[in-house]
Amino acid sequence: MFYHIKELQFDARVSHPDPRFAQLLLEQFGGANGELSASMQYFLQAFACRAPYPDKYDMLMDIATEELCHLEIVGATIQMLLGRINGYMKDIDEDCVLTQMSNNTAKEELIHQALNNPQFLVISQGSPTLSNSVGVPWSSAYISGNGDLTVDLQSDMAAESRAKIVYESLIPFTDDPEVKRTLDFLMTREVTHFQQFQAALESFEPHFPPGIFETNPKYSNLYFNMSEGENYRGRWNKGRSAKLMEEWQYVEYPREYMRETNGMRDIKPEGTMRTIKSVKERDKKLAHKRSNEILDTIPERDMAWNKAERYHERELADY
Amino acid sequence: MFYHIKELQFDARVSHPDPRFAQLLLEQFGGANGELSASMQYFLQAFACRAPYPDKYDMLMDIATEELCHLEIVGATIQMLLGRINGYMKDIDEDCVLTQMSNNTAKEELIHQALNNPQFLVISQGSPTLSNSVGVPWSSAYISGNGDLTVDLQSDMAAESRAKIVYESLIPFTDDPEVKRTLDFLMTREVTHFQQFQAALESFEPHFPPGIFETNPKYSNLYFNMSEGENYRGRWNKGRSAKLMEEWQYVEYPREYMRETNGMRDIKPEGTMRTIKSVKERDKKLAHKRSNEILDTIPERDMAWNKAERYHERELADY
Amino acid sequence: MFYHIKELQFDARVSHPDPRFAQLLLEQFGGANGELSASMQYFLQAFACRAPYPDKYDMLMDIATEELCHLEIVGATIQMLLGRINGYMKDIDEDCVLTQMSNNTAKEELIHQALNNPQFLVISQGSPTLSNSVGVPWSSAYISGNGDLTVDLQSDMAAESRAKIVYESLIPFTDDPEVKRTLDFLMTREVTHFQQFQAALESFEPHFPPGIFETNPKYSNLYFNMSEGENYRGRWNKGRSAKLMEEWQYVEYPREYMRETNGMRDIKPEGTMRTIKSVKERDKKLAHKRSNEILDTIPERDMAWNKAERYHERELADY
Amino acid sequence: MFYHIKELQFDARVSHPDPRFAQLLLEQFGGANGELSASMQYFLQAFACRAPYPDKYDMLMDIATEELCHLEIVGATIQMLLGRINGYMKDIDEDCVLTQMSNNTAKEELIHQALNNPQFLVISQGSPTLSNSVGVPWSSAYISGNGDLTVDLQSDMAAESRAKIVYESLIPFTDDPEVKRTLDFLMTREVTHFQQFQAALESFEPHFPPGIFETNPKYSNLYFNMSEGENYRGRWNKGRSAKLMEEWQYVEYPREYMRETNGMRDIKPEGTMRTIKSVKERDKKLAHKRSNEILDTIPERDMAWNKAERYHERELADY
Amino acid sequence: MFYHIKELQFDARVSHPDPRFAQLLLEQFGGANGELSASMQYFLQAFACRAPYPDKYDMLMDIATEELCHLEIVGATIQMLLGRINGYMKDIDEDCVLTQMSNNTAKEELIHQALNNPQFLVISQGSPTLSNSVGVPWSSAYISGNGDLTVDLQSDMAAESRAKIVYESLIPFTDDPEVKRTLDFLMTREVTHFQQFQAALESFEPHFPPGIFETNPKYSNLYFNMSEGENYRGRWNKGRSAKLMEEWQYVEYPREYMRETNGMRDIKPEGTMRTIKSVKERDKKLAHKRSNEILDTIPERDMAWNKAERYHERELADY
Amino acid sequence: MFYHIKELQFDARVSHPDPRFAQLLLEQFGGANGELSASMQYFLQAFACRAPYPDKYDMLMDIATEELCHLEIVGATIQMLLGRINGYMKDIDEDCVLTQMSNNTAKEELIHQALNNPQFLVISQGSPTLSNSVGVPWSSAYISGNGDLTVDLQSDMAAESRAKIVYESLIPFTDDPEVKRTLDFLMTREVTHFQQFQAALESFEPHFPPGIFETNPKYSNLYFNMSEGENYRGRWNKGRSAKLMEEWQYVEYPREYMRETNGMRDIKPEGTMRTIKSVKERDKKLAHKRSNEILDTIPERDMAWNKAERYHERELADY
Repeated sequence: MFYHIKELQFDARVSHPDPRFAQLLLEQFGGANGELSASMQYFLQAFACRAPYPDKYDMLMDIATEELCHLEIVGATIQMLLGRINGYMKDIDEDCVLTQMSNNTAKEELIHQALNNPQFLVISQGSPTLSNSVGVPWSSAYISGNGDLTVDLQSDMAAESRAKIVYESLIPFTDDPEVKRTLDFLMTREVTHFQQFQAALESFEPHFPPGIFETNPKYSNLYFNMSEGENYRGRWNKGRSAKLMEEWQYVEYPREYMRETNGMRDIKPEGTMRTIKSVKERDKKLAHKRSNEILDTIPERDMAWNKAERYHERELADY
Repeated sequence: MFYHIKELQFDARVSHPDPRFAQLLLEQFGGANGELSASMQYFLQAFACRAPYPDKYDMLMDIATEELCHLEIVGATIQMLLGRINGYMKDIDEDCVLTQMSNNTAKEELIHQALNNPQFLVISQGSPTLSNSVGVPWSSAYISGNGDLTVDLQSDMAAESRAKIVYESLIPFTDDPEVKRTLDFLMTREVTHFQQFQAALESFEPHFPPGIFETNPKYSNLYFNMSEGENYRGRWNKGRSAKLMEEWQYVEYPREYMRETNGMRDIKPEGTMRTIKSVKERDKKLAHKRSNEILDTIPERDMAWNKAERYHERELADY
Repeated sequence: MFYHIKELQFDARVSHPDPRFAQLLLEQFGGANGELSASMQYFLQAFACRAPYPDKYDMLMDIATEELCHLEIVGATIQMLLGRINGYMKDIDEDCVLTQMSNNTAKEELIHQALNNPQFLVISQGSPTLSNSVGVPWSSAYISGNGDLTVDLQSDMAAESRAKIVYESLIPFTDDPEVKRTLDFLMTREVTHFQQFQAALESFEPHFPPGIFETNPKYSNLYFNMSEGENYRGRWNKGRSAKLMEEWQYVEYPREYMRETNGMRDIKPEGTMRTIKSVKERDKKLAHKRSNEILDTIPERDMAWNKAERYHERELADY
Repeated sequence: MFYHIKELQFDARVSHPDPRFAQLLLEQFGGANGELSASMQYFLQAFACRAPYPDKYDMLMDIATEELCHLEIVGATIQMLLGRINGYMKDIDEDCVLTQMSNNTAKEELIHQALNNPQFLVISQGSPTLSNSVGVPWSSAYISGNGDLTVDLQSDMAAESRAKIVYESLIPFTDDPEVKRTLDFLMTREVTHFQQFQAALESFEPHFPPGIFETNPKYSNLYFNMSEGENYRGRWNKGRSAKLMEEWQYVEYPREYMRETNGMRDIKPEGTMRTIKSVKERDKKLAHKRSNEILDTIPERDMAWNKAERYHERELADY
Repeated sequence: MFYHIKELQFDARVSHPDPRFAQLLLEQFGGANGELSASMQYFLQAFACRAPYPDKYDMLMDIATEELCHLEIVGATIQMLLGRINGYMKDIDEDCVLTQMSNNTAKEELIHQALNNPQFLVISQGSPTLSNSVGVPWSSAYISGNGDLTVDLQSDMAAESRAKIVYESLIPFTDDPEVKRTLDFLMTREVTHFQQFQAALESFEPHFPPGIFETNPKYSNLYFNMSEGENYRGRWNKGRSAKLMEEWQYVEYPREYMRETNGMRDIKPEGTMRTIKSVKERDKKLAHKRSNEILDTIPERDMAWNKAERYHERELADY
Repeated sequence: MFYHIKELQFDARVSHPDPRFAQLLLEQFGGANGELSASMQYFLQAFACRAPYPDKYDMLMDIATEELCHLEIVGATIQMLLGRINGYMKDIDEDCVLTQMSNNTAKEELIHQALNNPQFLVISQGSPTLSNSVGVPWSSAYISGNGDLTVDLQSDMAAESRAKIVYESLIPFTDDPEVKRTLDFLMTREVTHFQQFQAALESFEPHFPPGIFETNPKYSNLYFNMSEGENYRGRWNKGRSAKLMEEWQYVEYPREYMRETNGMRDIKPEGTMRTIKSVKERDKKLAHKRSNEILDTIPERDMAWNKAERYHERELADY
């Protein structure tokens, strides 16, 4: 259940209207990496983990709700940046032909700036639209929820990274110290959330690879040099891999390798301690563990979301 | 600012898993007429009217927030309808080849049903996706906010009508009395909100036509018979028009009429008391009235969303 | 069956090219509230009501067809506003580097203005695109058809309201009296159609709530105060509801109410004459009535759209 | 201006309801290659050529209008294939739990089949939706109009080819001779239109390459063997090219060729009579010709779509 | 299997940054007719014809791969046109408020130009986005693959035509001879590919109509005059049809014709040598021929993509 | 420049057709987390880092190209899983009415299974479509490139996590050991790439927070308890934060906190060693460092992608 309070979480202000910056800021309102994306992503992910991982559910709903607060802050800032356009648009008067705008009054200047994103005028009349800075509608194609926290928390860390850099990119385009202050707050919070998601991820044991299967040691430490030219060696294809600690096998000529190995069929694991047998055993164990963590908390039938015991004597007669 | 409470607004329950119905119910989660559409539409519309129409702002935010509660109820119900799939999907075991599913256990039956919407398995692993019943992602193209309450409230009444009928269509597809009870609550609330929006609309004077311009009496009561064949006369093309009370002028042969009137240039208003001159006068008056309602409440600069006076002594030095 | 006549329904003209306004006007060509949306929405809704409600079918097809005429008017106006760009684009000559455009001739000025929407040049070469003012392609996600006229006509009234306000918003951005004249015609027609749809809706008895179910009196007059802060009371949460004439029950503290009522389970209808029993009876009666209105007009098999009796002696041998 | 007649262009019939086939047939209603795509594509292309190429305008509008007739035929057929579902959906009665559907009556069977596309039930209640066979909304991203008939007519021939093969693919999925008859008509018409577009294309001189520029002879007859393995030679890389009649130059090792020619900078035209100089001369000539064909028919200002002379004495005072 | 080489197929260069042209050029990167569309379309079509038509597979993969090279060329050109923006965006410094941009340095000018497409700054920070010139994301709705080369090759010829004209339209908007040179190369290649696709199409016998069915001679040479007004006769509705060589039957009054023929039921083939019987025979023959071309090359089970014989002794034990 | 080899990187095989699994597998072909998404994301990100970070460019292009190989493997597997459908669809014969399918032959069974995704039959005739498992077209809205490797590599790790879990979810739905083997290879590679991206990320110093700004210490360690109910404390809101090592400040009552701090204006950094001053200094330093890394490698004009020195003597005369 949600509740609304008629104050913003952060005291957002605007010193003077700036429709151009309002347009840029739409990117964080209805854009791919904006606040609606963040809020909906965590909200979506929370459903599956409410029963088995109530602590993660708590965290996800705390952050999803905060992002909703941020969505409101961004929307309110856009509304203020659009100034009095909504009022000007009502005062439709044939003597005032906006396109001439000969005497460059503040009103005309404002509307002229807003024309950069025509939908501010002809669609929303001086209020936010749920689209990005070039007018593309928000789509849930932007968000992910894969029913597994070792995956979802990675998605969330990435989402926070992107949201952070977009705020960072926006800051130079306003000279309003009030707006800068708001953006500074919002940007900082993305970094905070990143750390929360990382901590939550690390509280799982194991948390890598994401999901259950540990993967096949035959293919897991091969590096294919698919791009001919200046090749580089770094810790991503030399030494040991970051997580599984396997020795990177650098395949300089992937085509020849493919043929020599009969399309990868003749590979034997090299540079790794892992064997297919040991992997399968651990896979099976982890599969049962994770499965049971969930099954133990969800009844086969008669499910209730709220505390069910409080209602057990209810009958259905009055439906 | 939003707040979350870890109980649903309505005590939603599910008697037994039913992935097929979960798929249908997605329509009200991430579908065109679903709860996210409703919530976002009212939330969006609220920004522009916060200052000039604080009573409508209050109502819009009350309902937007309630719809958010409903979104959560629908999502929770889908989660419960998917039962223990999320857990089953973790117990990946090669001996259990799901596609064979020879011994028709409850688990296999459940997964088999879920396959009707494959994304429940391979994308979300037994939790909701933010898409409609056929898997199309939610898009803000579904919602409207036009910066004018006489328009927006019409959009809202229509949105509530559509949401209502979708719930009505869903009810026969479940035989679970608990789910029916939840749908009954949600469906009823749409009708409640419809009446709230209508009352709010009628509190504007005038509220028709939407917006400012009253429209040109030359064209406003013409009915063009554009579809040849069995023609019908009813109160929509006979007698007086519902709002402007003009006498309908039935144009039986629109092509000939177009030519006779020189492409509508030679029309004189008929069957109406309104004249172009009187319309223009009222337009001008209403334009100023509406414009001023807004301009009077929005400062030209130094805008704050929260109660600004509480902070006026703040300086910006510490940014 | 459709027919085309090579004249516009309205004698649309353009005094001088204006590619910027052409861009704005795209909003009514391929935008969410534009003429294609209107035409397709009514056309779509007409199919289901052709047999049971031939009078409404007649009206829907009359208006759908008129909107198609308007789509053509808008497209033709955009074409004229783009002036001779299509011809200029063909005269590709290396000596004439458009980006330099040193001597500001009319041609270069025109192309420069068109660059505001690059697709006018590099995609359509000076002709309309089926997208909105920011270039987003038209999508049928914009339109609704729910197989029930008490819902569809609400959607249509809302659609007309939005189309009207967009025309209203466009008018100040052109100073061409000919274009203004065309917009005035188109805007007026939206208001005309609104009244037609309302009259058609009111010819149903009952027409509220939309669809069949009258809804549950337990929840139908509750107003939840979900947004804390300055709260307002108006006819939308005080006195009697607009349609069902129930006494509004104002729930000031929804969270507490939810808990006290055990998640709404312990509510008894208050402030209403309606009872669950009486509602169910009326629901059942209306369900049968509406169902029969349709079933009586549609055969179980051997369906024909045109007048079938004229062909009954046909055989299928020649297929 | 459009006109509607309440009979279909083709006497479409349905012997018995078949919701499954209705779902497939949606592909030609709101799918990528369906009738709306065809109609809108030709309608869009017609605007630019109305003045300079009135004969092509005539043809495009003839076919665009016929496709609109076909859209109606397809929609009507879907409506009939859905049978009496719209009526059944109204008869909502709790005793009749559709999901049980124990006694397999015709009604229940019908609704069960319709569930394959849930939107037929919960969204449109037994009538068409403007989407494809898997429920994706129609988008104008499907259609093309590039302001040049030598391009557009190619797009149209391709569109007709695709529409034809989709009908061909649909036919085996119905066993209803009436429906087959309708599909046969619609399929045949696509092939007819293809030939009309081809004839129109060939009436341009020259009509290849599309547009103005004849292209650079240095690169125009090179064939790059970019896919290693079994290589084939055919008339597409051996002998003379189909249109420009140049000798194909087969580049067996594109990487080496790129390096030897300094990234294509050191190429001299081979196997062609065309020279850069002669090409540029023809380009310039054609550019002026095509440009003038258009400019000669479009005034610089004071444009009218309908026959303007009939109205020249009109004044604007009455606006 | 794909391979990458760290040089472009064409030595693309840029003389000076030009963010505005970078925006236009996006149309060929992530636009409807751009290089990704081309590459993905041919790649997609190639799968089905690999076994039955290995020569066409070879050609499709040659061209698909070349288009991928072109995608890289376009992306690299956009990157160069954006100049050093990526670096400037990193030097975020509060003293340098970009929006003031008082001293119009090169840096500020560049960023100012880039603001025309805000996503270049706030989303991609001076690198390409996979969208078109107005920021709409690329969608596979742009491409076609219909599992039949007589259709697909038509789609490909049309795609090349559109790609060609877009390059042609772009050339006048840059004054950089290096960029012009690159565009000239890319444009020329589209025309080359067109001719390759045409030659491949013509190597099929028969290749018209596309697909299998030859179509019904009753309807195949009718021309419906659906657009009243100035009508024209040309080779598309007079004389013989281009492919099937049937005499065009001009139907001047389609409505009357529809009624006289009982909705097309009473038509007898006229002006054609084809009869329904002869058509059916040829249809059947062609169906078997085409079907067998495919079936003969695809085993019913145990399929392998690479040369299977090289691996037949492999066992699956080590999976 | 890309090259294609007519063998798959992995010797993918299929034991028997399985159109249902082909449908599921589409998720990794044209779905949000599929191989096209992966390939395009890395390809897109590579452009900006080619000059300043050639080692990362090498790695990104190696992996982007490998993902393209995987896209081909998935497509080929789908093609094989669809078996001989493409051939069956050509053998259109009226005596063989597919919908009856009385004698359940292998052919009919296959087509029946394929009907689950109708587009396999009526659109692609037995070959892959570039859409996900429910038919939604692929969109570049799925991918991210933010012009900053500390962000992009996070996005890439998340993308690999999602791709991995989708393969994991797919495996139980096939019983074909050959297909399992291919999925095992593809799944393993996602985990390999994850580790490569992580290693590359860690080679940056600093690499957290992503981008430049270190963020404001006033807000960076606050945890807002926005979801009332069962609250949990874990390493994400207790102790020190994972990266910045600040002491978490748990705000139990966010609303009260907001008011007490005057909308966050009165906060002083607590539980952190970082000060606004020290942060600003480090920000400035890092900004210059990162900016220079890029600016040092990109000339202000005369840019070339390939090794420019090899061509410096070229003139442009022959364009």
